[in-house]
Amino acid sequence: MNNLKKIALQLFAFLFCAHTISAQTPADWVNPFIGTTNYGTTNPGAVVPRGMVSVVPFNVSGNSPLNQTDKDNGWWSTPYSWDNKYFTGYSHVNLSGVGCPELGVILLMPTTGAVNGDFREYGSEMSEQVAHPGYYSTYLNKYGINTEVSATERTGISRFSFPAGQSNILIDLGNGLTNESGASIKIVNNREIEGWRMTGTFCYNDGTERPVYFVARFSKPAEEFGVWKKMPKMGPEAAWSATSNKIKYYKNFKAEMAGDSIGSWFTFNTKANEEILVEVGISYVSIENARLNLNFESQNFDFEATRKQAEEKWNEALSTITVKGGTDDQKTVFYTGLYHIQIHPNILSDVNGQYPAMESFEIKTHPNGERYTTFSLWDTYRNLHPFMSLAFPQQQLNVVQSMLEMYDESGWLPRWELNSTETHVMEGDPALPVIVDTWFRGIRDFDIEKAYEAMYKSATTPGAENKIRPDIDHYISHGYVPLMSQFDNSVSHALEYYIADWNLAQLAKELGKDADYERFLKQSRGYKNYYDTEFGIIRPKLQNGEFMPGFNPRQGENFEPSPGFHEGNAYQYTFCAHHDMDGMIALNGGKKNFVTKLQAIFDDGHFDMANEPDIHYPWLFNYIKGEEWRAQKELNRLMATYFKNAPDGLPGNDDTGTMSTWIVYAMMGIYPVLPGDMNYAIASPVFDEVKIQLDQNFYPGSEIIIKKSGAGDKIKDISLNGKKQKSFFIHHTDLVKGGVLEINF
Amino acid sequence: MNNLKKIALQLFAFLFCAHTISAQTPADWVNPFIGTTNYGTTNPGAVVPRGMVSVVPFNVSGNSPLNQTDKDNGWWSTPYSWDNKYFTGYSHVNLSGVGCPELGVILLMPTTGAVNGDFREYGSEMSEQVAHPGYYSTYLNKYGINTEVSATERTGISRFSFPAGQSNILIDLGNGLTNESGASIKIVNNREIEGWRMTGTFCYNDGTERPVYFVARFSKPAEEFGVWKKMPKMGPEAAWSATSNKIKYYKNFKAEMAGDSIGSWFTFNTKANEEILVEVGISYVSIENARLNLNFESQNFDFEATRKQAEEKWNEALSTITVKGGTDDQKTVFYTGLYHIQIHPNILSDVNGQYPAMESFEIKTHPNGERYTTFSLWDTYRNLHPFMSLAFPQQQLNVVQSMLEMYDESGWLPRWELNSTETHVMEGDPALPVIVDTWFRGIRDFDIEKAYEAMYKSATTPGAENKIRPDIDHYISHGYVPLMSQFDNSVSHALEYYIADWNLAQLAKELGKDADYERFLKQSRGYKNYYDTEFGIIRPKLQNGEFMPGFNPRQGENFEPSPGFHEGNAYQYTFCAHHDMDGMIALNGGKKNFVTKLQAIFDDGHFDMANEPDIHYPWLFNYIKGEEWRAQKELNRLMATYFKNAPDGLPGNDDTGTMSTWIVYAMMGIYPVLPGDMNYAIASPVFDEVKIQLDQNFYPGSEIIIKKSGAGDKIKDISLNGKKQKSFFIHHTDLVKGGVLEINF
Repeated sequence: MNNLKKIALQLFAFLFCAHTISAQTPADWVNPFIGTTNYGTTNPGAVVPRGMVSVVPFNVSGNSPLNQTDKDNGWWSTPYSWDNKYFTGYSHVNLSGVGCPELGVILLMPTTGAVNGDFREYGSEMSEQVAHPGYYSTYLNKYGINTEVSATERTGISRFSFPAGQSNILIDLGNGLTNESGASIKIVNNREIEGWRMTGTFCYNDGTERPVYFVARFSKPAEEFGVWKKMPKMGPEAAWSATSNKIKYYKNFKAEMAGDSIGSWFTFNTKANEEILVEVGISYVSIENARLNLNFESQNFDFEATRKQAEEKWNEALSTITVKGGTDDQKTVFYTGLYHIQIHPNILSDVNGQYPAMESFEIKTHPNGERYTTFSLWDTYRNLHPFMSLAFPQQQLNVVQSMLEMYDESGWLPRWELNSTETHVMEGDPALPVIVDTWFRGIRDFDIEKAYEAMYKSATTPGAENKIRPDIDHYISHGYVPLMSQFDNSVSHALEYYIADWNLAQLAKELGKDADYERFLKQSRGYKNYYDTEFGIIRPKLQNGEFMPGFNPRQGENFEPSPGFHEGNAYQYTFCAHHDMDGMIALNGGKKNFVTKLQAIFDDGHFDMANEPDIHYPWLFNYIKGEEWRAQKELNRLMATYFKNAPDGLPGNDDTGTMSTWIVYAMMGIYPVLPGDMNYAIASPVFDEVKIQLDQNFYPGSEIIIKKSGAGDKIKDISLNGKKQKSFFIHHTDLVKGGVLEINF
Repeated sequence: MNNLKKIALQLFAFLFCAHTISAQTPADWVNPFIGTTNYGTTNPGAVVPRGMVSVVPFNVSGNSPLNQTDKDNGWWSTPYSWDNKYFTGYSHVNLSGVGCPELGVILLMPTTGAVNGDFREYGSEMSEQVAHPGYYSTYLNKYGINTEVSATERTGISRFSFPAGQSNILIDLGNGLTNESGASIKIVNNREIEGWRMTGTFCYNDGTERPVYFVARFSKPAEEFGVWKKMPKMGPEAAWSATSNKIKYYKNFKAEMAGDSIGSWFTFNTKANEEILVEVGISYVSIENARLNLNFESQNFDFEATRKQAEEKWNEALSTITVKGGTDDQKTVFYTGLYHIQIHPNILSDVNGQYPAMESFEIKTHPNGERYTTFSLWDTYRNLHPFMSLAFPQQQLNVVQSMLEMYDESGWLPRWELNSTETHVMEGDPALPVIVDTWFRGIRDFDIEKAYEAMYKSATTPGAENKIRPDIDHYISHGYVPLMSQFDNSVSHALEYYIADWNLAQLAKELGKDADYERFLKQSRGYKNYYDTEFGIIRPKLQNGEFMPGFNPRQGENFEPSPGFHEGNAYQYTFCAHHDMDGMIALNGGKKNFVTKLQAIFDDGHFDMANEPDIHYPWLFNYIKGEEWRAQKELNRLMATYFKNAPDGLPGNDDTGTMSTWIVYAMMGIYPVLPGDMNYAIASPVFDEVKIQLDQNFYPGSEIIIKKSGAGDKIKDISLNGKKQKSFFIHHTDLVKGGVLEINF
């Protein structure tokens, strides 16, 4: 950590503590700065639960000395960094907690003096940052402008307090986080502008491009306005033109304007401290829908009402779980986790229900509720969806309904869906465990036969026609995916397929499809193909049945490429057959050897808290009677080490809430180790009491209380409503009947 | 002339002669290749009289070895050159005969094989060019595609005959002649695409930007389609992206796409010689109006019907004048001139009458007829508008009505108007002579009081607020525009103001505004300020009343900059006070000296046939009794030397028909020497008989016949309807009574 960062963290601590003294509502326990450095890639922008719009301070471009690293001097995947101070506006569509650059566009920037459309020049040092759910504020040192933002589901609102003189509000459609480019704008009048901006190429995958449409309205008519465009470099004509390769300004221009890098400005003569507000409506369907969203959700420039409404929505969402005990920092880590869980998946549909169909340019209408987007399923299937099922079952139902719509529209369930495009990021078939898990948790108001058909399709279609499992053929014929090229991640692919197929088997059984049950269950056991007795670990295998030569189980640490494994190494993938615990334990030499090997993962530094494949490892000790204390011990250590009330308080990418779900579960003392398996493993809650409100539209109980008692350092016994439990697991069906789960130390 | 050019001209001569053997209609006497080299800047594209759309073979980009010079390796101002053979598509909005690059966009290009969006690569050698009014065809050697195009007022139609295999039709919105950039497109379905393309910066003047909208329809559904975009050069992300700084192809993309350089393709499996047609509707108002224009004017892909209709419109327009005698080449030069006169001004309004208002982004509706655009008034006030008044008075009325609308909309009459923007090209106040001349010719169905108000405004408003005459102050107080900076063209400005003010004086008198008459008449005499007795010529003058030191009257030849003069030198501007012939003759030492000096202009090589300031010089001999033969002699020489039935058959820029009007008048034997003065000077017609159809809605006569008789080499006498004329002038009022004007040699 360098000095600048230290000073910044100290300043932050001061500001945040000053703010939380009067904390009373759950929202007051959220620190939106958690995860905004150390690759957490969250941001402190204003957003409401599952909002399409987030209004995020964009400080990751310009290669300014005020920035540590930004998109103009290195890899970058987030619109905001705690380490940066060069502010170039508020972006209105953003991703939180992802590992590839995308969105981060429609930038609203207040300035003073002469209009300048070059973000390398118009940016300002930012200071006095304040973030609260649904609210963010920063002061722009260069201009003496105070800025505040809030949001509704589909609109953003900005309040700028200007000094006296010429004040400008810029809308920059050139700059942005995405690697797509191109935009079109039209100034409607001196208070309104409309347009759209291209997005796409998430993780450099072509075929994922979408325009995002907007309408922006100003609280005051502009005295002057215009658009700008960075002109291409001309050929011989450059000798006569004043604007070749320069920004050209089109004053009072009111026709359409398009280009790779365009923007517009609205200029006002302001009195000292004069406030000008901007409301921005967003849509992925059309400018008309962006205007509709704006008209419907706008509070007519009432910033305080918008902010209050946003905060109320957060308090409602966060109140689903209340805690007693724990330190202030623990409460903050917990509620910030719960906050992050409510950002993605997010709303894609407009107020009239319209949205762009999956992998198509047709406009469809979601029957009721909202169509969701941003499904980082390789991450979220592990814990976020089981969590949504428990705490927000209506939303999880909407998740599954959205996924089935995607199947209807494109012929395939999603893997990593963004704004109705399949980005093909990561691997496996994670839609299956999400759907099966949801069904088994008792959320069943969807067409299970259609869901089965969709899941069956990706589990059985030959590779040449299989969009989700293109390397399925050898997997089906021989039980594993062979290594065909050095970094094809073949083992990772197969391990995901095993879990998916195990889930499908469980559902097949439930639906009376016994042959399918047998088939998929057998398929799910194929993981044993990879077990190499030489190393006592899994190892990539060739098509001819031989193990890959030259194997180094450590390779893959620190995100370097590793043959057979994606974002990890053999250690982090070896215990990923937890859908067959008995089999996996036997394979590893029985219970004792299994415990030894699992413990060594932690002791020898092979455990990676920053990425998903092994995040269930700590709870695997619960499967060996008498060894559960190891889970408690490792979890206490991991929670204390990697999760903090600080900008670097997440161990790595939040992965659209997956890491946040991990810490929320861990702090509550329960964890759904295996999606599709209704048993929660139990470990050490950090709170004296956790109360989860149950949605009685879905569950028999009204609330479940997880109570910590005793003063020992290990769990002595567990009881549900006074009845002692035989294992360190509690079944979902029992839990959602409500009552008290007492964990006695 | 280099060898390539010689061969090309020979090929042309062969093709054209082959075609004209069966010539019978006036359109058959048009050679659209005249003026397509030697800086004529006309083009052979398909267009109807005053059409908004012209479909022009675009062969001026790519810096190919097949091109002599193009926009990518040097100065360029025309979408087509006879000297070039690298074809990159048909552009749908174009200017004819101008000296600055503009328009030349919405390029439609047929190719075969794999789709390639780079015009440096997809272009083809062109051959077998055929051009006829409303029709053009060329063969693309590289692809074996025959192409043919025709047009209606607001649509273009293309017929492509493809070989067997994969055939593509590209719409390139990146490439073009204009220096503006930026476009937006959306593929509507597999047979239709809509979008718009920015235009503007004519002569590098900012503030003249307009989108031009289009809808294109295909006669056959495409099997595949998509859009492309030249991606900007990325920063650090380029390491991960496959498309940084490259063309990216978006297959089957159906949302909006925008950027600096974008295009789209439609792909078809074609049988040998299969024809696919494309119709393109254009509008300057909106995509909706482009579709409306297309729906209204389209002949449903009936190419022959469209072509026939276009030819009929030309024959109707060209039949206004019929000739007898003369050589085939002379007839061709004459009718091609008449053809060029009918290209600009052109229609701006859509079929519903809508158009973008002058210097504004409001949409207005022209009450009836069409709103015109492309007013190159510094050129055309001299002869084209008087000609339109004589031959096409309804169109000239529309010209004046359009000009008055521009005044209503923007507060000023136009100087060089293009698509409802004032480009501020060239100087003077040429709207005044156009309006006054029109009025005196008897075309009066417009609001003359408003016209007077508008003209008075530009003639009297102080310079600081005067958009047309910003340097008027010293002109009003001291009678001339002083040289304030080296190349401010001050003398040229003033000379134009004198003629404008003389015109305004004539109208003031007519309207009974006697004080104004005196004032403006006096102002118009200020030209004498510039007369320098030392050189016997006009000379730039300083603010203190002294002449500019270091004067070289020859400076300004060959378009090099010359202090005080625009596109010319003192010789070419000295006899520009022809609104005060008596005064100018006296100033030059009386009749004898005047004739000597005027003759010396020709004899010493100072006369410039390629530019406007001196093009009236030959007829000035008619003002000196007994010296009229000099006019005849010089005109015979100029006509024979500079105007030919060949691509280099114009002496320079056609200047939206001004040079063509010159030759048409000259060949008829009459010329309106001074706009606002109703006397036509008479010289040597090249035809035995010229019959001008008169529009009896405006004129008492039904036709006027100009008859050449006798066999001498000089005019002996002139008679109108048998009555001998006293001078070598004929008054417009007498001429339009109809009858026979006999010029006896």
